[in-house]
Amino acid sequence: MKLDRELDGLLVVSLEQAVAAPYAGLLLADAGARVIKIERPEGDFARGYDAGAGGQSAIFAWLNRGKESIRLNLKDADDMAVLRSMLRRADVLLSNLAPGALARMGLSGKALRKDNPGLITCAITGYGETGAAAKKKAYDFLVQAESGICSVTGTEEIPSRVGVSLTDLSTGLTAFSAILRALIQRGRSGQGADLSIAMFDVMADWMNLPLMAHRYGGGAPPRTGLQHSFIAPYGAFWCKGGAQVLLSVQSNREWAAFCHDVLQRPELTSDPRFADNPVRYINRSDLDAIVNDVFGKLERGAVLDRLDRAGIANATLNSVADLSEHPFLCNASAVIGGTEIEVAALPVRSGPDTPTAVPGLGEHDDILRREFPGDP
Amino acid sequence: MKLDRELDGLLVVSLEQAVAAPYAGLLLADAGARVIKIERPEGDFARGYDAGAGGQSAIFAWLNRGKESIRLNLKDADDMAVLRSMLRRADVLLSNLAPGALARMGLSGKALRKDNPGLITCAITGYGETGAAAKKKAYDFLVQAESGICSVTGTEEIPSRVGVSLTDLSTGLTAFSAILRALIQRGRSGQGADLSIAMFDVMADWMNLPLMAHRYGGGAPPRTGLQHSFIAPYGAFWCKGGAQVLLSVQSNREWAAFCHDVLQRPELTSDPRFADNPVRYINRSDLDAIVNDVFGKLERGAVLDRLDRAGIANATLNSVADLSEHPFLCNASAVIGGTEIEVAALPVRSGPDTPTAVPGLGEHDDILRREFPGDP
Repeated sequence: MKLDRELDGLLVVSLEQAVAAPYAGLLLADAGARVIKIERPEGDFARGYDAGAGGQSAIFAWLNRGKESIRLNLKDADDMAVLRSMLRRADVLLSNLAPGALARMGLSGKALRKDNPGLITCAITGYGETGAAAKKKAYDFLVQAESGICSVTGTEEIPSRVGVSLTDLSTGLTAFSAILRALIQRGRSGQGADLSIAMFDVMADWMNLPLMAHRYGGGAPPRTGLQHSFIAPYGAFWCKGGAQVLLSVQSNREWAAFCHDVLQRPELTSDPRFADNPVRYINRSDLDAIVNDVFGKLERGAVLDRLDRAGIANATLNSVADLSEHPFLCNASAVIGGTEIEVAALPVRSGPDTPTAVPGLGEHDDILRREFPGDP
Repeated sequence: MKLDRELDGLLVVSLEQAVAAPYAGLLLADAGARVIKIERPEGDFARGYDAGAGGQSAIFAWLNRGKESIRLNLKDADDMAVLRSMLRRADVLLSNLAPGALARMGLSGKALRKDNPGLITCAITGYGETGAAAKKKAYDFLVQAESGICSVTGTEEIPSRVGVSLTDLSTGLTAFSAILRALIQRGRSGQGADLSIAMFDVMADWMNLPLMAHRYGGGAPPRTGLQHSFIAPYGAFWCKGGAQVLLSVQSNREWAAFCHDVLQRPELTSDPRFADNPVRYINRSDLDAIVNDVFGKLERGAVLDRLDRAGIANATLNSVADLSEHPFLCNASAVIGGTEIEVAALPVRSGPDTPTAVPGLGEHDDILRREFPGDP
């Protein structure tokens, strides 16, 4: 009754590099598709992101486990014939090349579907495929800034980059979902489709909450570091020894429980400065001082115990090291160049929990060239 | 050849509130499914997030356009019979209730599939459905902190919340993709499936880049505000008048073009402090001072012109107001309570570009109760 490699039998050819398209390819491979990664002769430059997996890249391994890989020089006619041979049998052509690059090679969806009417193409771009948007170079951090997400992230004084590859990963996941949609549509119509996903469009949709606040709510929410922008108390507070705990008080009922059982200062429930959320937010510097004063005398574990017993939602401000050892973390194994590493597992599990192989550069060159000989 | 409401004919029943499940429901509705949103008698509390759309919530409108809505009190036997009537015909039951709540109402996937073998259930939780994870309350910001993403976001001194509902939106999109996968699987097997998606698991996967750096690369990358953590120059620089422009120099070839055509200081190409990226990164405070000195004498437009001509990737540090007026932004219309608002469009377009209706509270109560009468 769970998912079990439901894309088994599908062939995906992926002209992919860096993060966004490889992440979509990873999701397709984990769902059971056969994913052939096409690399330039010198390899996906993501192979050089780090050397932590026995000299090869752990980040590359995370993004490329479960795929096959072949090196092709697309300026070479014989190599192009191999690619065309694959595309005559492929279900999906995934790519994150520069806009227009595939069409210039004669590899538009329209052209390819003459031989293969069910082919689905999915191109990932930074800003789109037409006009000025097609010319603008895109990297994750740059799209973050261009889309406004840095302007709502960080402290009051200083905007910040989001510390994960937010635009790449959200776009890769969007591309995955769009390909699944096209497969469902093809199941009804027999016809393929051309999909184009722009990182900027994905981020713009995800910005709708601050965008609605700007357009219709009197202004985008301010940057507030680790405090919430309109609920108090909601954010990070300091415990004895320097650990930080986050908590959220969402109602007056929770506020009463917080005063009685967490702060152990029941008289605060009748303090007019804190009578409801709007005044608690206005008087939040007084409130924060009271909370930090109580928490500063308690170890983190004691604070979390009190919060749990009072039914107040809480979290720990974890470091990456804390995440790595988190009791709720599910790991999965990947093997690259004989070295096994543990990555955080995908959130939807599918198939057996055995270590997944990551292709070495050129690993499947010979076998794939035999399977997909170019035109004679 | 594009997507055209390919989920037409599918019935989704969604016990949803706030952001994560409603966003998944929005994606299903936009793909053509009929989505019935079940609201408690007082309504999804997200209806009160703001009052910017003629007294109703613009944020709610963004997340709930294209759905039908019915109020049901699930503690009332007659209302529960209406829900059961819907679930006998439904293809998908989506929910983000507290873990175990559906099973306690007798609405587990296993029980429901006795009458409806193809039913797919998808439950969104904070941390999972078993043990301590099931008991831990989850809000977007708390899961951000617990998963470590705040620890890699912000300035060197101060970690920060990501300013969009990252965990909610990524989890909603993951749930959407998992439902599409289960629909494909059902197309092969005829059988439904039970899906469970935890916000923490989604974030842990997205944290794999810093996690790999921690586990295998000598430490998680430091927080660096608006500068990149291992490439220089890569980040935000100040122009005349106070605007900030981001740029990224990814190779020595680009570095040379940057010195010649952007900084117009060709002698820097032979400066040993900046000979390649590793030393540029080590000497980045000298480098940043040089860049800011040149840019500080130029208006933003002149800086962007020089960067474009030199082929150096760049972006503007946009505010939410800038995003709202961005020439690349695609808008879509939603109508709530007679008020039309413009939201950032979904990144994958499907169907006609007409304004989409947002259901009022109770709007479809009568018609849906007639269509789905409870057991006599």
